[in-house]
Amino acid sequence: MPIRTAEEYIQSLRGRNMKVYLFGELVKEPVDHPMIKPSINAVAETYALAERDGEMATAKSSITGLQVNRFLHIAESADDLVNQNKMQRKLGQLTGTCFQRCVGMDALNSLYSVTFEIDEKYKTNYHKRLTDFIKMIQQENYVIGGAMTDPKGDRSKAPHQQEDPDVFLHVVEKNDKGIFVTGAKAHQTGCINSHWIIVMPTMRLLEGDKDYAVVGAMPADAPGITYIYGRQSCDTRSMEEDDIDAGNAKFAGQEALIVFDRVFIPWDKVFMFGEYEFAAMLVERFTCYHRRSYVCKTGLGDVLIGAAASIADYNGVPDVSHVRDKLVEMTHLNETIYATGIASSSQAHRTKSGVWLNDDMLANVTKHNVTRFPYEIGRLAQDIAGGLVVTLPSAKDLNNPTTGPILKKYLRGRKGVDVENRVRILRLIENMTLGRNAVGYLTESMHGAGSPQAQRIQIARQMQLGYKKKLAKNLANVKENPENDQEQSDYFQRVFKMK
Amino acid sequence: MPIRTAEEYIQSLRGRNMKVYLFGELVKEPVDHPMIKPSINAVAETYALAERDGEMATAKSSITGLQVNRFLHIAESADDLVNQNKMQRKLGQLTGTCFQRCVGMDALNSLYSVTFEIDEKYKTNYHKRLTDFIKMIQQENYVIGGAMTDPKGDRSKAPHQQEDPDVFLHVVEKNDKGIFVTGAKAHQTGCINSHWIIVMPTMRLLEGDKDYAVVGAMPADAPGITYIYGRQSCDTRSMEEDDIDAGNAKFAGQEALIVFDRVFIPWDKVFMFGEYEFAAMLVERFTCYHRRSYVCKTGLGDVLIGAAASIADYNGVPDVSHVRDKLVEMTHLNETIYATGIASSSQAHRTKSGVWLNDDMLANVTKHNVTRFPYEIGRLAQDIAGGLVVTLPSAKDLNNPTTGPILKKYLRGRKGVDVENRVRILRLIENMTLGRNAVGYLTESMHGAGSPQAQRIQIARQMQLGYKKKLAKNLANVKENPENDQEQSDYFQRVFKMK
Amino acid sequence: MPIRTAEEYIQSLRGRNMKVYLFGELVKEPVDHPMIKPSINAVAETYALAERDGEMATAKSSITGLQVNRFLHIAESADDLVNQNKMQRKLGQLTGTCFQRCVGMDALNSLYSVTFEIDEKYKTNYHKRLTDFIKMIQQENYVIGGAMTDPKGDRSKAPHQQEDPDVFLHVVEKNDKGIFVTGAKAHQTGCINSHWIIVMPTMRLLEGDKDYAVVGAMPADAPGITYIYGRQSCDTRSMEEDDIDAGNAKFAGQEALIVFDRVFIPWDKVFMFGEYEFAAMLVERFTCYHRRSYVCKTGLGDVLIGAAASIADYNGVPDVSHVRDKLVEMTHLNETIYATGIASSSQAHRTKSGVWLNDDMLANVTKHNVTRFPYEIGRLAQDIAGGLVVTLPSAKDLNNPTTGPILKKYLRGRKGVDVENRVRILRLIENMTLGRNAVGYLTESMHGAGSPQAQRIQIARQMQLGYKKKLAKNLANVKENPENDQEQSDYFQRVFKMK
Amino acid sequence: MPIRTAEEYIQSLRGRNMKVYLFGELVKEPVDHPMIKPSINAVAETYALAERDGEMATAKSSITGLQVNRFLHIAESADDLVNQNKMQRKLGQLTGTCFQRCVGMDALNSLYSVTFEIDEKYKTNYHKRLTDFIKMIQQENYVIGGAMTDPKGDRSKAPHQQEDPDVFLHVVEKNDKGIFVTGAKAHQTGCINSHWIIVMPTMRLLEGDKDYAVVGAMPADAPGITYIYGRQSCDTRSMEEDDIDAGNAKFAGQEALIVFDRVFIPWDKVFMFGEYEFAAMLVERFTCYHRRSYVCKTGLGDVLIGAAASIADYNGVPDVSHVRDKLVEMTHLNETIYATGIASSSQAHRTKSGVWLNDDMLANVTKHNVTRFPYEIGRLAQDIAGGLVVTLPSAKDLNNPTTGPILKKYLRGRKGVDVENRVRILRLIENMTLGRNAVGYLTESMHGAGSPQAQRIQIARQMQLGYKKKLAKNLANVKENPENDQEQSDYFQRVFKMK
Repeated sequence: MPIRTAEEYIQSLRGRNMKVYLFGELVKEPVDHPMIKPSINAVAETYALAERDGEMATAKSSITGLQVNRFLHIAESADDLVNQNKMQRKLGQLTGTCFQRCVGMDALNSLYSVTFEIDEKYKTNYHKRLTDFIKMIQQENYVIGGAMTDPKGDRSKAPHQQEDPDVFLHVVEKNDKGIFVTGAKAHQTGCINSHWIIVMPTMRLLEGDKDYAVVGAMPADAPGITYIYGRQSCDTRSMEEDDIDAGNAKFAGQEALIVFDRVFIPWDKVFMFGEYEFAAMLVERFTCYHRRSYVCKTGLGDVLIGAAASIADYNGVPDVSHVRDKLVEMTHLNETIYATGIASSSQAHRTKSGVWLNDDMLANVTKHNVTRFPYEIGRLAQDIAGGLVVTLPSAKDLNNPTTGPILKKYLRGRKGVDVENRVRILRLIENMTLGRNAVGYLTESMHGAGSPQAQRIQIARQMQLGYKKKLAKNLANVKENPENDQEQSDYFQRVFKMK
Repeated sequence: MPIRTAEEYIQSLRGRNMKVYLFGELVKEPVDHPMIKPSINAVAETYALAERDGEMATAKSSITGLQVNRFLHIAESADDLVNQNKMQRKLGQLTGTCFQRCVGMDALNSLYSVTFEIDEKYKTNYHKRLTDFIKMIQQENYVIGGAMTDPKGDRSKAPHQQEDPDVFLHVVEKNDKGIFVTGAKAHQTGCINSHWIIVMPTMRLLEGDKDYAVVGAMPADAPGITYIYGRQSCDTRSMEEDDIDAGNAKFAGQEALIVFDRVFIPWDKVFMFGEYEFAAMLVERFTCYHRRSYVCKTGLGDVLIGAAASIADYNGVPDVSHVRDKLVEMTHLNETIYATGIASSSQAHRTKSGVWLNDDMLANVTKHNVTRFPYEIGRLAQDIAGGLVVTLPSAKDLNNPTTGPILKKYLRGRKGVDVENRVRILRLIENMTLGRNAVGYLTESMHGAGSPQAQRIQIARQMQLGYKKKLAKNLANVKENPENDQEQSDYFQRVFKMK
Repeated sequence: MPIRTAEEYIQSLRGRNMKVYLFGELVKEPVDHPMIKPSINAVAETYALAERDGEMATAKSSITGLQVNRFLHIAESADDLVNQNKMQRKLGQLTGTCFQRCVGMDALNSLYSVTFEIDEKYKTNYHKRLTDFIKMIQQENYVIGGAMTDPKGDRSKAPHQQEDPDVFLHVVEKNDKGIFVTGAKAHQTGCINSHWIIVMPTMRLLEGDKDYAVVGAMPADAPGITYIYGRQSCDTRSMEEDDIDAGNAKFAGQEALIVFDRVFIPWDKVFMFGEYEFAAMLVERFTCYHRRSYVCKTGLGDVLIGAAASIADYNGVPDVSHVRDKLVEMTHLNETIYATGIASSSQAHRTKSGVWLNDDMLANVTKHNVTRFPYEIGRLAQDIAGGLVVTLPSAKDLNNPTTGPILKKYLRGRKGVDVENRVRILRLIENMTLGRNAVGYLTESMHGAGSPQAQRIQIARQMQLGYKKKLAKNLANVKENPENDQEQSDYFQRVFKMK
Repeated sequence: MPIRTAEEYIQSLRGRNMKVYLFGELVKEPVDHPMIKPSINAVAETYALAERDGEMATAKSSITGLQVNRFLHIAESADDLVNQNKMQRKLGQLTGTCFQRCVGMDALNSLYSVTFEIDEKYKTNYHKRLTDFIKMIQQENYVIGGAMTDPKGDRSKAPHQQEDPDVFLHVVEKNDKGIFVTGAKAHQTGCINSHWIIVMPTMRLLEGDKDYAVVGAMPADAPGITYIYGRQSCDTRSMEEDDIDAGNAKFAGQEALIVFDRVFIPWDKVFMFGEYEFAAMLVERFTCYHRRSYVCKTGLGDVLIGAAASIADYNGVPDVSHVRDKLVEMTHLNETIYATGIASSSQAHRTKSGVWLNDDMLANVTKHNVTRFPYEIGRLAQDIAGGLVVTLPSAKDLNNPTTGPILKKYLRGRKGVDVENRVRILRLIENMTLGRNAVGYLTESMHGAGSPQAQRIQIARQMQLGYKKKLAKNLANVKENPENDQEQSDYFQRVFKMK
């Protein structure tokens, strides 16, 4: 029976055989752990939104003919990609954090075309297997985690040259039923809250790396998997009694290291094995989708702008010109991110497999802006918040019969503002600029889907200096033998393809 | 007989009864004036492109059923608006300057819906008149100049309150044949190179301003019109014999003050008169189109990036990491502008009249980025160019038999580079960062379609702080009576409208 | 017997009658509280440095003839002010946090000249009282806390107009022995670690505010004082067993709300009472010293640059060009802050009282840069750190016999790097950009000594547009009647005073 | 008889045997050339200031015992260096351009210590020769040009490896009277307006480059010298009749290529020859002085801020909050440059020769800020100026009897403002952001004294990552074997040297 509601989703996570370590201890039931719960709530919100607003968070899939959760949908048009962005922004607004499902969505979409092209070359049947897998998860309405980032070890060496072969996940055995993989994936977002994990290679591979060229799906509680939970700023506040100091008590992100010790994948869940030359294509297409998915951060930006506007209001200065001007600047930066993402999606093209792929140059531009603007938005939010955001006493002091009244006397903002509400908004700003969700809003914006330099390299590959030099030389009336440039990029062909 | 080619266009400008002052003298034939010619060439390129690449620079018009120049086309879909952006970038690449036709295009499109809505309210027939006018110009393939910016006088006063009534263009007489207008329009781009001028009000008007609420079309050489040509950085280099020092000898922009002294407009060319409350709507829709039209500057950016890459190559340092990194940064900024424009266009909606209107928030975001990034791109181009860009001797020294060989000896870059070519590229960089086309690339990017503060005001109007405050308060678990906010903007309704 | 060592300082804090609330409970002995201890250590380091390096951290005082801790020294030359900056940077390097003594130093120095000038006008004897107080604290080697920031209530009203008179600290009774004050001071840095507190007005006062125009000193444990400790990002990690997750386990800052309930100040410790028109002078001089004191943040910047360089090294990429370039940028920004502070100090002038006062324009410029650059330095540090900085498991997982070896296997950086050391450096970066000392490095840099807008107002007051307009008009050959400008500022007189 | 006044200085330039090419022609008398004259005026202002304000622009020299022009003074204290900065800012304010004498001043000061240290090693007598030369020029009150920048040819090769040996200036013959040099120096500021030229090597040299390791002085009109004048934005406006369009008609900078064809230098004017290993020291010390000398640009910044404030006033919007805020931002950036320069000078140390040398890290930081902030100040000035700055008709149109009155009618700003004055201020803003003095304010700020990357390299050399890593590891409680770092820099020793 498929999962239908947020509540059913949460129930579906119970009683699994998960091996999750947190603070040096095995967690009995992750669903009940107060520090893990907010991250589950964030994923649950993706179900809740689908219930409340089907147009936004579901789509009709040609694969199953069902109206499926949009995170499980294979994009059938540029509009489908644009709609993903809209849903991402909405969920960012609703949760103020990372809702963890974009990796899975982007993995499924990129695998859809890559398996198609592998099959085309090798007459393999990966695409069929993947399609069957997608049918199953669409029917069951599962959460999919995508696991790409290997620990990498010595970065100057290829996977097969590493001293410890496990620093890249690889196949250690195969038999007629399937394969066994060993290794680890770092920085795994929301994996503990997923039903299935898809492992994928993390970078371009060489011929010697064939055993590392593996893609496959396994249940999140498959034998041999261990999770070690990441510890983050202010995370333990979620375990406190009062909900005030957390800032955003209901929602948070989740990061973990996943360790794979001879984890079995049956053949029908293997979507690549050995075709090392397709690893680069998979990584490029995945990051193309995923860098544009960071439009989600504009939803968080909306929340932070709202928090800044609220505190300005509580402080009695909502119309002071410099405050207003900072809110405009925050909005301008936030909408610039949104626009770059929307442009990338709307300029998508259809791949041979039928799935649509957004524009890669603009996806990188989107993400690159995301590595900068949220930090400036956060800085401006702290500016507007005032110093109290970091000098505020604890919720326990607010509720203590001696100190509570004192704080209510002295921490008043403009008339009519409840001190607790003022504190709550300040804690939300702390949460998003220094605290638990600053991880998602800032640091993840920096490194998720690739660090800034990764985008610069990808922009460089597509910037077509040869083409641009010709433009300049033409206008400057330079006469010289044409350069023998061999630019690989077709970016300007895409730009000038009329719709 | 319609104009068919760039050459025919240039011919069509000859022999008109134009009153153009330049350097204190009446210009005999603007087409033959060496300082004006480059600006005509830039407009001519819009014809040439239509000849060469009809898909890009023409469109099938439902109004006439003809394949018309895209600058004369009324947008029938969001794609039509996206395609405008693509053509704008291409023409920016081809000319390295302002090609002057966007104002007319954006004026026609905004008038199309505004006249429709005036008629709807007042049962006037402006929309029919406009449609007839559009038919005629589509058939003849004319260039249209849009004239909006009045001198404004004392900015604290409404038009009808001004000491000198003429500081806003207004109707001074009407009879059964038509109306007579007096006043001036400043900063008029490309008007001398146009066949027809459409005058429009420049801002929100009050009831007392009825005589100022006038829109009408007149031939560019109508009796009573005087043009005073703007003087710009390095403009006289176009009058020099040698083409090197101009940097971009073929193409340039054009600015003039137009003075109207009782200029007659027959009724069938009057598209608004007295409906003062529609002035604001016209200005808003026009700037909505036009701020997004600044995507053209990415074409200039491409040229400047190409010039910087060329000079790096001539200097022998194309692969030095900091040079490469600066080219990536220039590209990133340039593509960010492009993406914001494309997003605005692709998120367009259909107005009641049938013409499509791009997203206003994102149009303002686009233009606001244009007031910043070209300056940084220009700064980086100067960085890569090296000091020679401002210490270079003149073309005459380069050609002088004594100094020429000396310069060729000492100004050599890497082996195999012709010194003259190196000089040409440096002069192009000077042209775009300090010289004649720096006007178009930098200062016009600052002030065209409204100065930065105008965009900030428009962003502020649409930023929906009330909506965002609710998001924040919801996550912070703030309980309070809802604010009685009356936000006029429907930006987030647009954002979350699924496609 | 004076305090001589860091250890003696810590002992001197024991057994006082302090009423400190933290997490809703009265703290028994702050010195022994694990969350408070790091803030005491940071102050103790100011004693330790004086022991180790007397030239840096002590000065010969003309007041007592003693070699006193530099934080207790009244500046007798511009070099004394420069030397303060050098000591501040050094202590920032040694502690990586706020060492809390600058407010007291800057309060003493500003009061020194202000009391002198009050006495000059009113024949009072505040300066003598202050000098006696300074003698005593120099002899005893005490820590002085300066308390300025009132809660302020409704910001549109003067102190005496507030609904609740206590939102600004004020005199509620006086008798022949002294005065009694009631109110509160917010955002109080290091007060619990001080021996004496000096209260001061927080802004320009009006005639009706005489009871608010009060300056006086009292022991930190005077009857009637209550402290409510501020709760900050990651503060509870200091209470954990292991020292790794804290990032910087030894040092931290401290913020508290001080509440004054009829606290007695004897007349000999009253340094202003009623002379409301000197409140503005006091605030201006205090902020002049104190905004320049933010040079301390360059010491924290040095630590963070060092941490970023360390992690780049541990990751095996210390010489990659973009990493190197980011380290240069961080250094450039950090040294810009340092230089602006040093310039302000070196351009000091002697006041009538003999104490030297640094340049006010440049002090504001220093602080204004501090509201920006540490955020960018922090952003770049996160960039270099990589995503692991926010996905790292806890110290308990590192030490757990099951997960420890796994983490040591998979979190290895370049060969030869101990995983625990890598973790420690990442936790330090987290500490300074998201965690406990991010409060001091980022948010305090924003709001300490006045929020950004306060500096802009002060810069505006001194920018002498009238003078600059004359420069421009002279070069543009503008002939017009001179403006009747009455610029109050003498900034350019100071600039052009030759040394 | 020494030169005593600005007028005498101008006279002293007449009748020399100068070979100056401009626009392909030999200039008869540079002093009388309208395009050269403004650059001479700028230098003359250094004499005029010395007459008017001896304290600012002269100093008592221990070498001659005379009160000499400060540009000829060898710094005898840190205050002397600070005073240079103050004079530089003043002259920037007075001229709005480059006054061209800093290179000579900085060359003399750096040679003073370098010749001393060469003599110390080789028992040569360069220092004595230089001192004699300084005596002579102090007595005669001459202008000295310093010529450093060789054309450099193929940048991957050392001077002696170049295909054309002349791309670096070198000794082609020596005899008992002196030496003969051949080569060229590019980007030479103010050389034509100098009495003497000092040639110096431009970079670190190798043993094979001995003939290139040459420093010597020669009269500016020595036989064999040819100047080819640089052509710059809007330069020909200086040759127009009316003074309006020039923007700043009186003052401008000057750049030229100097070509040396077997120019003779007698032995007593040779200050280095063959000691190749001292070339690097000379370049480093020269750039150390000279990068800090870019404080002059704050004087230009003052003019541009004044122009922006004037036009805001003429437009009737001086107190609009966003305009005011932009003026504050411009001021903040400008004062940041000033402060970094002052810090570098005030943190100077005495060299063995007795001359004082400012701090090198902070000099590089100063210049690096100068490569950024003037561009942003210029951008903001254009923002405040409005579009008219680039659409304004020419002075001839303003003076034409037909168009003049029209322009005066329509270009009016707020009441009471003379249109011509408004135009003059706009032309000044154009002059400094696009026109002739934009070269000095922007591009020279970028490349003068070394391009941005040169400063980054020098900052990198001094950033002491080893020292900073220790700070971080200490706070993170990292235990490991100390690195064997061999940092050459003593920057932190300088920082922590107490005054």
